[in-house]
Amino acid sequence: MTNKLIIFDTTLRDGEQSPGVTLSADEKVTIARQLARLGVDVIEAGFPVASPGDFKAVQRIAREVGPQMEGREGEGRVNAPVIVCALARSTRNDIQTAFDAIRDAPRHRIHLFLATSDIHLEHKLKISRDECAARIAEMVAFAKSLCADVEFSPEDAGRSDREFLTRALAVAISAGATTLNIPDTVGYNTPQQYGDLIRYLRANTEGADSVVWSVHCHDDLGLATANSLAGVSNGARQVEVAVNGIGERAGNTSLEEVVMNVHTHPHVYPVHHTINTKLLFSTSRMVEDLSGMVVQPNKAIVGRNAFLHESGIHQDGVLKNKQTYEIIRPEDVGVTTNNIALGKHSGRHAIRTKLDDLGYASLTDAQFQAAFVKFKALADSKKSGVTDGDLHALVADVRSSGNDSAADATPEAEADATAAADAAAAPVASPRYELRHMQVLTGVGITPTATVSLLDSRTGAVRTDVALAQNGPIEAVYSAIQRITGIDTDLLSFSVSATSEGQDTLGKVSVRIARAARPEDGGQEGSRAAASEKEEKEALAPSGAQPKFAGLSTNVDIITASANAYLAALNRLVNHDAADTRAAHKDRNVDI
Amino acid sequence: MTNKLIIFDTTLRDGEQSPGVTLSADEKVTIARQLARLGVDVIEAGFPVASPGDFKAVQRIAREVGPQMEGREGEGRVNAPVIVCALARSTRNDIQTAFDAIRDAPRHRIHLFLATSDIHLEHKLKISRDECAARIAEMVAFAKSLCADVEFSPEDAGRSDREFLTRALAVAISAGATTLNIPDTVGYNTPQQYGDLIRYLRANTEGADSVVWSVHCHDDLGLATANSLAGVSNGARQVEVAVNGIGERAGNTSLEEVVMNVHTHPHVYPVHHTINTKLLFSTSRMVEDLSGMVVQPNKAIVGRNAFLHESGIHQDGVLKNKQTYEIIRPEDVGVTTNNIALGKHSGRHAIRTKLDDLGYASLTDAQFQAAFVKFKALADSKKSGVTDGDLHALVADVRSSGNDSAADATPEAEADATAAADAAAAPVASPRYELRHMQVLTGVGITPTATVSLLDSRTGAVRTDVALAQNGPIEAVYSAIQRITGIDTDLLSFSVSATSEGQDTLGKVSVRIARAARPEDGGQEGSRAAASEKEEKEALAPSGAQPKFAGLSTNVDIITASANAYLAALNRLVNHDAADTRAAHKDRNVDI
Repeated sequence: MTNKLIIFDTTLRDGEQSPGVTLSADEKVTIARQLARLGVDVIEAGFPVASPGDFKAVQRIAREVGPQMEGREGEGRVNAPVIVCALARSTRNDIQTAFDAIRDAPRHRIHLFLATSDIHLEHKLKISRDECAARIAEMVAFAKSLCADVEFSPEDAGRSDREFLTRALAVAISAGATTLNIPDTVGYNTPQQYGDLIRYLRANTEGADSVVWSVHCHDDLGLATANSLAGVSNGARQVEVAVNGIGERAGNTSLEEVVMNVHTHPHVYPVHHTINTKLLFSTSRMVEDLSGMVVQPNKAIVGRNAFLHESGIHQDGVLKNKQTYEIIRPEDVGVTTNNIALGKHSGRHAIRTKLDDLGYASLTDAQFQAAFVKFKALADSKKSGVTDGDLHALVADVRSSGNDSAADATPEAEADATAAADAAAAPVASPRYELRHMQVLTGVGITPTATVSLLDSRTGAVRTDVALAQNGPIEAVYSAIQRITGIDTDLLSFSVSATSEGQDTLGKVSVRIARAARPEDGGQEGSRAAASEKEEKEALAPSGAQPKFAGLSTNVDIITASANAYLAALNRLVNHDAADTRAAHKDRNVDI
Repeated sequence: MTNKLIIFDTTLRDGEQSPGVTLSADEKVTIARQLARLGVDVIEAGFPVASPGDFKAVQRIAREVGPQMEGREGEGRVNAPVIVCALARSTRNDIQTAFDAIRDAPRHRIHLFLATSDIHLEHKLKISRDECAARIAEMVAFAKSLCADVEFSPEDAGRSDREFLTRALAVAISAGATTLNIPDTVGYNTPQQYGDLIRYLRANTEGADSVVWSVHCHDDLGLATANSLAGVSNGARQVEVAVNGIGERAGNTSLEEVVMNVHTHPHVYPVHHTINTKLLFSTSRMVEDLSGMVVQPNKAIVGRNAFLHESGIHQDGVLKNKQTYEIIRPEDVGVTTNNIALGKHSGRHAIRTKLDDLGYASLTDAQFQAAFVKFKALADSKKSGVTDGDLHALVADVRSSGNDSAADATPEAEADATAAADAAAAPVASPRYELRHMQVLTGVGITPTATVSLLDSRTGAVRTDVALAQNGPIEAVYSAIQRITGIDTDLLSFSVSATSEGQDTLGKVSVRIARAARPEDGGQEGSRAAASEKEEKEALAPSGAQPKFAGLSTNVDIITASANAYLAALNRLVNHDAADTRAAHKDRNVDI
């Protein structure tokens, strides 16, 4: 048994099952690239059979991130490419599809699952225990025939008969599984119960010593980290985690919490990790920005307040007792304490260095150029200097404001881009609609009105329209944009946050939209195009679920940020490729 | 040893030490009232010696909430008033001041602390171990001479010499302490380590069986709940918690997580509680609204997504295995699943009933009337019906928009109001400034300008002024208000969130302001008054820390909400009583 703790990140699979979270293929590749740089051992990239869009995203990660060695070499690093993993139910079609999506990664893994609890066997799968064991044997063997690295999860392990569970797991081992993952599906185990389960299974499963045991916990009772660590203390050598602990309900185990526990208590947990902890904060910010799942200020490790000590006595005392505790200093997790005053005279090199320090070494030249232009504009208007928080927001804005890259538009284009080695490094395509002019009148006792001019980059035409609204100026702006484009949308969520303190703070607006559910009968050209796109999409999404598009923008003016965030989402909607259509959410989600 | 788990809530003391959180006396009373209704056993109301404002807030809680029996009677309830507790360092002045603040509560407790680790003794207190033990004996005895219920905390217990710690605790017991609280000050213990510590202390401290052992954990590594429960498994019978887990750095143990763990695993933890779990969600929302500390969607128990199951299989399965797990249904913690469509035809009675269901039974008639007026206005403008989220926001708005009650203005007025049995039930005073008219012009390529008219209720005059801004329309609005009032402020924080989904969602704006640090030289009358108020305040706050004022408002129009939130904070600032001035934050914060 090795003492390396394998960090298996499921931000892009189980994490993306969070209600309201839908990541585009580009966003998934961006996050996967950062996870590889962070040093995770395995990326669970998705559930390829769920939809053509999911398949493509997993395939792009396998091809574009699978070979990446950036940040992974050196002392204390993993010194190998990341393992790209895909999830499959225990059917030949699922397994084959998963394999096809990941096969281009230098290191890849199939993760298949089958329920082993009587409740699931009787009510959901309608098979006997013997049939269950036989299916495990057959499907693990099939996966093994495609791929040496096979992980098996007994769904609902916590409520499975223990004797049958050890039998099912022994069957998986003898059929070739190399990792066995034990999900605490319901999230209601105590650390004692879950640790005992892992110990029991390792002690009573034939062949247990030849595989890696893995833990997968949920945070319904606030115990995911404690349960995962109880598993590690009882012999687990893989933890399944998500950045910021995102996921369904109360979410998955937090990557950053497990890593920093192991990091802080090297004498308690008999394992080591190869994560570059200095990238934890920027990775957290990236996932927060792209998923829209806000991190609360008092979140352990990555919350805004996590390192705000009011007095120096703790740190001071702890420093004097290094043998007792290894302490976490803010810089250990990438929280920079000295906000170097970046102002309008800061040059290109200073900004690039600062962005590298913040974990954004991967920005393409085009993205950096866009960020630099925004930085200059901000430095001009902001009296108090540009803060780290502002820079995080600028980067998020740059990442969000373009369309999905051309590689995401059609399968052909994608193949081309892949041949070009790194599609994400290519400059993003210019957006369809650009804000050219806007005038907003609002107030108390005034009907909010907005006059908006948009450039349609396809036709070169600038069109202007005006709209009023019952519910404030932002609704008026969105209505005017809908009139110009002829695309009727539902605003699914709208949030604003400030990125730093003070009157000239940046407002960060995040929106999610979908094409309006009500039929669009307008006679405009744009509207007809919209209707035809809609039909095409619905044919592929049998449940009628509308794909959702996110947009994010930062600006000192909240109304301008709101307009640009909406346009970013709208440009995504317009460029949306039929293949990116998702199957009904229900079908994509699995209970492990 | 009883099997009742005492829930000791420190939201108003340790929780309020969260960076950026400053609660007014009215807000503290509002939260304390809800905590009493929730069924907590002990409320740690503050640290009275820190400032006259802290003293007054604790005293108001003792007098107004101390006798409250509402919600505390019946089967499974505590059937006694809440114990109001105040914190004190181990000095006569601290202890006497704490006692004076709480003595009017029918049940009250003094909580005193002294460090026992060599680091603290040598470097901070500069006393020997023997002197430490002698001081504990003397000060616990002094507290006992005032109050039968005395809690003692050895600060930095985790790094104290264990033998000396048991000696110090035995001294506290023989001097009359009835509760011994063991803080995991640094937040870095593992559950195993912390559980072992509690077991060791109970086994090795003379007189251990005659006192209640208490746990106090911090969430720096995401383990506060697990550590607290490990303490309970090892004999602790009191948990110190905060709503939403707020507090310094990563915060305190979450009240709701500990309670629901004990609730869900009645056969694992040898304790019961008397919390009305159905009020957990509304209590969480109240603390989120008043503290401004956002709860992330994937927060266990009270996060927005915590009960969003994508499929029914979990709940279904769990229901079939009630002997294995007691499940948490959303309604168990007050998350109402059926959003009854409240619309413009909903009457007064329906709204009152709904608000009671949501945990707002305590609204005064005046507050309810204000909420009802806002409800009607909202129902008129909102197509999709008024949701629970909207109602939570309306209530927060009503609570925030008035001034502090007259009882908070002067000591004399306070005594009068107390005599009137329930100051919080009195209608809040009318605010000094009211928004009468506002016109805002903004856009891209347009300099944001705002024209604002305010009624000054003191003079009856309506004054109008206009301002422009570099940074968007909200800055322009705030500048215009500053011109009218002559009060220059710093905007310390500004946040906006949406209270429900969709285009006609309510925007909830929360601001914190302080009087501007730069000298105000304007010649206006308001400005001179401001300068004199400022001098008075600074004389009482030796560190020069400016008191902060929060304002909150909800409106479908984000600009209007921003204006009203700012005015709510400004009205608080104007009415700010010198006695409410706080001592420097540093002095108020203690490391337990």
